[in-house]
Amino acid sequence: MNFSSDNVTGVCPEIIDALIAANDGPAMPYGADDGSGRAEELIAATFDTGADVFLVATGTAANALALAVLCPPYGSIYCHPESHIQVDECGAPEFYSGGAKLVPLPDRDGKITADDLEQALRHEHGDVHHVKPAAVSLTQTGETGVVYSLDEIRRLCAVAHEHGLKVHMDGARFANAAAALDCPPAEMTWKAGVDVLSFGASKNGAIAAEAVLLFTPGLAEQFAYRRKRAGHLFSKMRFIAAQFEAYLRDDLWLTMAAHANACTARLAAGLGELPGVTLRYPAQANIIFADLPNSMIAGLRADGMAFYDWPGEGRSTIRLVCAFDTGLADVEAFIASARKHCP
Amino acid sequence: MNFSSDNVTGVCPEIIDALIAANDGPAMPYGADDGSGRAEELIAATFDTGADVFLVATGTAANALALAVLCPPYGSIYCHPESHIQVDECGAPEFYSGGAKLVPLPDRDGKITADDLEQALRHEHGDVHHVKPAAVSLTQTGETGVVYSLDEIRRLCAVAHEHGLKVHMDGARFANAAAALDCPPAEMTWKAGVDVLSFGASKNGAIAAEAVLLFTPGLAEQFAYRRKRAGHLFSKMRFIAAQFEAYLRDDLWLTMAAHANACTARLAAGLGELPGVTLRYPAQANIIFADLPNSMIAGLRADGMAFYDWPGEGRSTIRLVCAFDTGLADVEAFIASARKHCP
Amino acid sequence: MNFSSDNVTGVCPEIIDALIAANDGPAMPYGADDGSGRAEELIAATFDTGADVFLVATGTAANALALAVLCPPYGSIYCHPESHIQVDECGAPEFYSGGAKLVPLPDRDGKITADDLEQALRHEHGDVHHVKPAAVSLTQTGETGVVYSLDEIRRLCAVAHEHGLKVHMDGARFANAAAALDCPPAEMTWKAGVDVLSFGASKNGAIAAEAVLLFTPGLAEQFAYRRKRAGHLFSKMRFIAAQFEAYLRDDLWLTMAAHANACTARLAAGLGELPGVTLRYPAQANIIFADLPNSMIAGLRADGMAFYDWPGEGRSTIRLVCAFDTGLADVEAFIASARKHCP
Amino acid sequence: MNFSSDNVTGVCPEIIDALIAANDGPAMPYGADDGSGRAEELIAATFDTGADVFLVATGTAANALALAVLCPPYGSIYCHPESHIQVDECGAPEFYSGGAKLVPLPDRDGKITADDLEQALRHEHGDVHHVKPAAVSLTQTGETGVVYSLDEIRRLCAVAHEHGLKVHMDGARFANAAAALDCPPAEMTWKAGVDVLSFGASKNGAIAAEAVLLFTPGLAEQFAYRRKRAGHLFSKMRFIAAQFEAYLRDDLWLTMAAHANACTARLAAGLGELPGVTLRYPAQANIIFADLPNSMIAGLRADGMAFYDWPGEGRSTIRLVCAFDTGLADVEAFIASARKHCP
Repeated sequence: MNFSSDNVTGVCPEIIDALIAANDGPAMPYGADDGSGRAEELIAATFDTGADVFLVATGTAANALALAVLCPPYGSIYCHPESHIQVDECGAPEFYSGGAKLVPLPDRDGKITADDLEQALRHEHGDVHHVKPAAVSLTQTGETGVVYSLDEIRRLCAVAHEHGLKVHMDGARFANAAAALDCPPAEMTWKAGVDVLSFGASKNGAIAAEAVLLFTPGLAEQFAYRRKRAGHLFSKMRFIAAQFEAYLRDDLWLTMAAHANACTARLAAGLGELPGVTLRYPAQANIIFADLPNSMIAGLRADGMAFYDWPGEGRSTIRLVCAFDTGLADVEAFIASARKHCP
Repeated sequence: MNFSSDNVTGVCPEIIDALIAANDGPAMPYGADDGSGRAEELIAATFDTGADVFLVATGTAANALALAVLCPPYGSIYCHPESHIQVDECGAPEFYSGGAKLVPLPDRDGKITADDLEQALRHEHGDVHHVKPAAVSLTQTGETGVVYSLDEIRRLCAVAHEHGLKVHMDGARFANAAAALDCPPAEMTWKAGVDVLSFGASKNGAIAAEAVLLFTPGLAEQFAYRRKRAGHLFSKMRFIAAQFEAYLRDDLWLTMAAHANACTARLAAGLGELPGVTLRYPAQANIIFADLPNSMIAGLRADGMAFYDWPGEGRSTIRLVCAFDTGLADVEAFIASARKHCP
Repeated sequence: MNFSSDNVTGVCPEIIDALIAANDGPAMPYGADDGSGRAEELIAATFDTGADVFLVATGTAANALALAVLCPPYGSIYCHPESHIQVDECGAPEFYSGGAKLVPLPDRDGKITADDLEQALRHEHGDVHHVKPAAVSLTQTGETGVVYSLDEIRRLCAVAHEHGLKVHMDGARFANAAAALDCPPAEMTWKAGVDVLSFGASKNGAIAAEAVLLFTPGLAEQFAYRRKRAGHLFSKMRFIAAQFEAYLRDDLWLTMAAHANACTARLAAGLGELPGVTLRYPAQANIIFADLPNSMIAGLRADGMAFYDWPGEGRSTIRLVCAFDTGLADVEAFIASARKHCP
Repeated sequence: MNFSSDNVTGVCPEIIDALIAANDGPAMPYGADDGSGRAEELIAATFDTGADVFLVATGTAANALALAVLCPPYGSIYCHPESHIQVDECGAPEFYSGGAKLVPLPDRDGKITADDLEQALRHEHGDVHHVKPAAVSLTQTGETGVVYSLDEIRRLCAVAHEHGLKVHMDGARFANAAAALDCPPAEMTWKAGVDVLSFGASKNGAIAAEAVLLFTPGLAEQFAYRRKRAGHLFSKMRFIAAQFEAYLRDDLWLTMAAHANACTARLAAGLGELPGVTLRYPAQANIIFADLPNSMIAGLRADGMAFYDWPGEGRSTIRLVCAFDTGLADVEAFIASARKHCP
């Protein structure tokens, strides 16, 4: 009964099977094997695009490499103040970009907005004393569990492009957003104006598999060099590729994400009706932030529930995350425990 | 019959089994799980040390992170002119160190020597106009297949330490050298003066598993931050850890390396007696460089043998690499093919 | 009648004379000449310290080099949200540090406070997912013209040191603060806990002369290498040194700064009594921010007064800066013009 | 009687006068003043070009910034093994480029050659395992005092451009080469194919003044940001500009360089006829390397001559440099002293 994170999970059986199948004799290294080619094509096809696709193994690598090809060392990247790139990657974007600056926009219910971006850019006059606005990064699904609507994405991209900025989408939990919006991946990305996507699988049933899609042409060569130079070009690439092939086959990725979302919706509904419980954001994907009475939190832990406290001001907030392998029985047990510990 | 490289190989069955076994319910992420702790301890125990151990997934990451904690941005790293860090990592050490300089020492039969290091350092006066000598890196097994003797390692380390330099060992093929020298890992590393080791498993039966051992105290904190910041801290670390547990259990790693070495020795013996064939280096581990008649090279390829040409001056040199899964029958077939195509 | 900035000024005659005098035959390059040694000693003596002193030519170089020796690439630097290092140096600290992150603390009447620093550090748990708090930087005189009291500096330094952070003081206008507080330079710096000072002369009568004082031992070697590597070690160093010798002789620097401060005080007093004028901060040194009626701003410009508008929200704010060479008659003319244009 | 270097010299009186004249009331900072504009135009006009011109204060800054706009972090820069950028700038190009690699070509009588560049590039296949060849840098006048002919420059540039590389010329002693070849600056640079020039004045009579000319379009914006970010944008830019205005007026720069060259030629002629003396390179500009008997070297020093020993193998080599202010009497005294100490 572990709701700590979707990274405490193991791996779905289809992906394990794919790894075993991939272990079949010699294969060209560094992505020159057939399997890697197939995986890259499958990813591109999933997004209905001919975009360049690069495989890496961690979300931080995907994000930092993506931002490094969008932002020069003297540039700035607008982002959410609680975004993973800003607070949870130990400065990876700064490292990979050669010292770019991340500029947080205001938090608007867990998102950034086109209006705030417009406002921020209006004050920039493009002189050399200040870093040059170069990119904006949004997280879909957001770190708070919210999902940007297609219109919100389109407006953010439009403002960014008007001012010459590129748009990065951190899709560590892209699957959950795609399942939530029930829209084609292309709609949520390049058709809305996204230039580069970090497309994660690790949090949704894979071991360690992330893809970067460069929808905007002209970025592939430097991405390739930067990936190698960062030590993120795997010699036995086929084993990352195999994860993606299994992940995308027969919409497995969406099925798993939809399951995690459904568990979360049930959790939100069950908790939301308890007195003293407040949900901080609408439960759109697979993450909930909720304010609970302290006695309820203690009781849940006593009953064996695992989850993270989330530092706030004067409230007792917890974060709950469901994943592809969350048991519905565990969800019901969580709700029952919470109900039992109502003050 | 693929002798191209030890990175065209798949994975040994014990490691596949370990991955399956590790996929057992939730586990704390980012190396805080029990399995990661066990693997780190097992690695340290294998080297008879209490050194800090860090797991990563690629050899380039291991090397570049190791060098970044040994060499400041304004420092230099002495190395072999054909070393992986110098020619095959697209400048990863420069990237991770913040712009350090790699300084090649003369190639002496595939190695660097203590005398040449001494000679190079004698000319350095420690003024700020020149980068500061900070580290030396040697590769064991060397890129040319040669193995440094314990005495050679000790002398290199002694000269380095006299001049205030730290020593890095690139052990992407450490297992092959350990098997060749038949000496305890500790003897070949920290007892000889090595400060930091990149200990590779990926080329010897693992999917993607490398460990960095920091024998010299005081480096662990910055290594930990730098690993995370580079995107090389894996959330589902247990799957790297599991590879190492299987790799080291019952000396599997040495058994596999000894097999690769034996194949290589047979290959060298078989080829060496053919007219027109010259071995460039003694065949000590799992790599051979050999000058062959052009017609023999063409004939081997026609017979389905895969291997790399190696750019040289006026000679036709090929590289042959054996691995944990090289079949002895393939070796004999290679020799027979070569004999058949003797001019 | 130019109140735009203290960097629109020329050079005081004593410094011109010193340059001419320094142009006397050959001298050892790169700071090995007698004059450079004398200047470094004189600077150290002025601060009653044996600290290492390094000369550079721009404030951005001084700050960025200072921060680079205090903060690792994976570290963070707390600062004022409007500090020069954060908004006016195009990411120089990020560049020099190898990608550190600047973290703004709340603006409290133009300053940062020990309480806010304490609050920020309380939330940091020192895990590798977040950048490591490494330094705090305060500006004395602050960018808004405010001056930190000795007690404020001491408390900031105490909190920083308790948490293992180092303290940098950006003293581009150090002279104005020293004149305002009328306290020995040592009291305002190392005796209060400051680890490294950027000590500026360029804004107070020099051409281009800044010194970095490393009060905390152990930083000099890397500073020296980093300065050279950044192209900030001048071959004809004697001409920077000569500026400092003249600057510090007979307290010229304090005399010039006191003059600028007095002009500013008169300006503040004269403007402050006009209806519709609001001073944003107490006029403690040589900078004023004032809200003026739009018609008064237009009138001043029509009368030939030069100054900068300062972007704000809904107000018409201007910035006025006095310098060593500001004429008191110009000050009176400014006040008279403002009075004339009172609505 | 100091022949150590052209950076031990002072400043020519015309430049001192120009500094005094520039100190005339307020001026817009950061190069927005009239004088800076005039200087930039004058420099461009001197090179018969509309190229973007940027002023900085040190040769290392000029070179490192120039290379940073020509070479990506994952790129390589071909250069002479004894070039300033390779051995005397403490890794500045690596720092500014974000970790590019300098690749020395063979030393051919103090120069690099088009043939060797061609040869080096022939082996590069453009895969991501190796850094990407991006630029070549040649030094005119070379560090050994040799001068590239127009044809040599053209051939180097042609090979570079064929392979997609850009060409940087380190012109710290450009004036001496221009005087030696007696050709228009444009011929020696952009008309021969040079993309970016570091045009130095500091070694030829200025205090600290270097210009970077970006002959190839499209580089100016990033150069401007990088200069600021590196702390090399001077607030009182007019004082660098003034140096260049005086430097270029009435061909002063060429007159001074021709004088230095003439002194050197006389020195070479005088020394060359002495028994036991060997000149290492033809004396084309203002630097001589000569092998002297040890007793002669000792005798010269005893007579008060200052110069540097140059580390070599088994020879006693000294370097002699003449400058704009070298006295012909000193030259004759040097020759006489050498003759006196002939063994």
